[in-house]
Amino acid sequence: MPTPNAKLEPPRLGEPYLLTPGPLTTSYAVKEAMLRDWGSWDDDFRGMTLEIRTRLLDLLGDGKDDFDCVPMQGSGSFSVEAMLASFIPRDGKALVLANGAYGMRSAQTLDYLGRANVVLNKGDYLPPRGDEVAQILADDPAITHVVAIHCETSSGILNPVEEISEVVYAAGRKLLIDSMSAFGAIELKCADIRYEAMVSSANKCIEGVPGFGFIIARKAELEAAKGNSHSLSLDVHAQWAHMNKTGQWRFTPPTHVVAAFLVALRAHMDEGGVAGRGGRYTRNRDVMVAGMRELGFETLLKDRWLSPIIVTFFCPSDEHFVFDDFYEKMKNKGFIIYPGKLTVVDSFRVGCIGQMDEHVMLQVVAAAKETLEEMGVANAAPPAIALEERAKLAA
Amino acid sequence: MPTPNAKLEPPRLGEPYLLTPGPLTTSYAVKEAMLRDWGSWDDDFRGMTLEIRTRLLDLLGDGKDDFDCVPMQGSGSFSVEAMLASFIPRDGKALVLANGAYGMRSAQTLDYLGRANVVLNKGDYLPPRGDEVAQILADDPAITHVVAIHCETSSGILNPVEEISEVVYAAGRKLLIDSMSAFGAIELKCADIRYEAMVSSANKCIEGVPGFGFIIARKAELEAAKGNSHSLSLDVHAQWAHMNKTGQWRFTPPTHVVAAFLVALRAHMDEGGVAGRGGRYTRNRDVMVAGMRELGFETLLKDRWLSPIIVTFFCPSDEHFVFDDFYEKMKNKGFIIYPGKLTVVDSFRVGCIGQMDEHVMLQVVAAAKETLEEMGVANAAPPAIALEERAKLAA
Repeated sequence: MPTPNAKLEPPRLGEPYLLTPGPLTTSYAVKEAMLRDWGSWDDDFRGMTLEIRTRLLDLLGDGKDDFDCVPMQGSGSFSVEAMLASFIPRDGKALVLANGAYGMRSAQTLDYLGRANVVLNKGDYLPPRGDEVAQILADDPAITHVVAIHCETSSGILNPVEEISEVVYAAGRKLLIDSMSAFGAIELKCADIRYEAMVSSANKCIEGVPGFGFIIARKAELEAAKGNSHSLSLDVHAQWAHMNKTGQWRFTPPTHVVAAFLVALRAHMDEGGVAGRGGRYTRNRDVMVAGMRELGFETLLKDRWLSPIIVTFFCPSDEHFVFDDFYEKMKNKGFIIYPGKLTVVDSFRVGCIGQMDEHVMLQVVAAAKETLEEMGVANAAPPAIALEERAKLAA
Repeated sequence: MPTPNAKLEPPRLGEPYLLTPGPLTTSYAVKEAMLRDWGSWDDDFRGMTLEIRTRLLDLLGDGKDDFDCVPMQGSGSFSVEAMLASFIPRDGKALVLANGAYGMRSAQTLDYLGRANVVLNKGDYLPPRGDEVAQILADDPAITHVVAIHCETSSGILNPVEEISEVVYAAGRKLLIDSMSAFGAIELKCADIRYEAMVSSANKCIEGVPGFGFIIARKAELEAAKGNSHSLSLDVHAQWAHMNKTGQWRFTPPTHVVAAFLVALRAHMDEGGVAGRGGRYTRNRDVMVAGMRELGFETLLKDRWLSPIIVTFFCPSDEHFVFDDFYEKMKNKGFIIYPGKLTVVDSFRVGCIGQMDEHVMLQVVAAAKETLEEMGVANAAPPAIALEERAKLAA
């Protein structure tokens, strides 16, 4: 049953909701924090950087003192590259667990870096499982690191990172997690799941605006990373050492974006941290998926694998359904949805993250219903081949 | 004689002016542009990206059609690294012309990249001159590229890039320019000075907020750059090709920062483009330097080498002058100045760029006068060694 959430307010200026995996709809207070200029070397700004690092580390819970947080300019992919280059030694070898675009991008990044790597490619959406990862590690003792995607937003699947972590450390290897679109809404407590480093970015579940990412890593790994990086700009060790010494970013930080992120982080805590944020997103997903299913839409994934971050729906088989038309009509109603990335069947995605609650999600469903009627789509059911696809997935 | 400038307004919220080489004081209109969220793949945002690229290219004047503009996430140093890695082939060799921190950073970046390089290190502030560059190029035929810093903000010197360009191309080599803190205020028209590529960033003379940089390069060089980059994130060719194909940035752009930059670029044109912007900064410098000299302060550089970007002053020799105290008192009066970077003599810097005019600069001088009085500094004259330093410089 939806409950009112007095703290959320609709976007102003008539702008649409962004039902996407980020950039997403942020609060007005977050954006208002960008209405002043900061000197990046000044004490005031150094204090803001320190507060951000401290608050992000707090999300790791017990054991966080073994870790440190290193913000990094650029998009989330810059932080992923920084993590891979800094923590996988030049003579290391990575196993990348891929089931979508972000896993494949990690593998591509490793190719750029000249780091040996193998890919377990599960295709569009099937999850990498513990037993198959264990088998690969047993067969290839040269593998030193495993790279996992927490929530693969290509399909919206929440990958089983706990199961993966167990087999990785049972085999004496190290785990790096791309938690870009999950961190802040899905727990990644270091007492519950073992890993060496993870990355996320400002414009995901913490609900800041885009402009930087952050790497959270064991201090021992940060120490050992010296000299590993291929890039001055993306050198995590150098950024960390400089920040700890001076309180400043090595190179100009996106000051306004940082100020906005600090407001977003405080709001995240006020909402109840990861549990509160994840709870709202889960309600968003449940209300939205239930409503869409009532219209005849089918999700790509079985319920077990649905993340509270973003959900993939098959496009209806009805000949009157044209995605570009659906997109424009939804946008005109105030909702920007996201194109799909599946290779076999046409699809689209609807995000559950950002400044919105289940009331907004009911409006999304109502807008979809109205749009289908306008398009003359009587039934939103997908083609039979779509359901055959889904049948490949464990329940 | 100062003339009123009705278009500028003081910063709000009681914040201080940033008398620095960026992040700098931006207009309220620029910051207000960040009060909404944008979907980065949406048509509206693609249009904004295209307008930015087009307007930046316009600043090159006649011959601009041979060039293209590639925005790049991260700080300006990220764009410098992207430029060096993309346009200097792996078997190339660079001559870096250094007279301060930014020249040395380019050399350090090349070391990370594994690109062969030699440095002409002129120390803290002496300019690299055409004849010495010509001699180095004549002596070392392996050098393929010369890297020059347009305005070296370590000292505030405006380096003679036209003179350097002439000898570089006379010797059949290629020039790359770091115009970070100069572009937009000092002409870099491609009909007047030859170069293959240049970089700058959002938070300098265009007066946007920090979060991305941009590379402007000859299309032929962009084509040839394929496969050169060491980094997926910083691959200029890949960013360019993707942007031209889809209208989108490859990875999440700092959407709010981009929106702010577009407003800043329009204001730049309204002010009269490079000539108008550079004219205001020049008046800022002239009024501020004249006033500071009246107080007894001396500039590091002789007038010929002073940029309209930032000016270095020697610290007074008076025993009552303590820089940290001067900094705090100036900040409390509403002006954040910038520490110096000289190795031989103590110094500080005052920036001339950002949303301020000569009236503000007169206030800066008045604040400095008052601060000296509060500190009990009777005379702001530097130690004798400082003037000996300056004597090394050509008039």
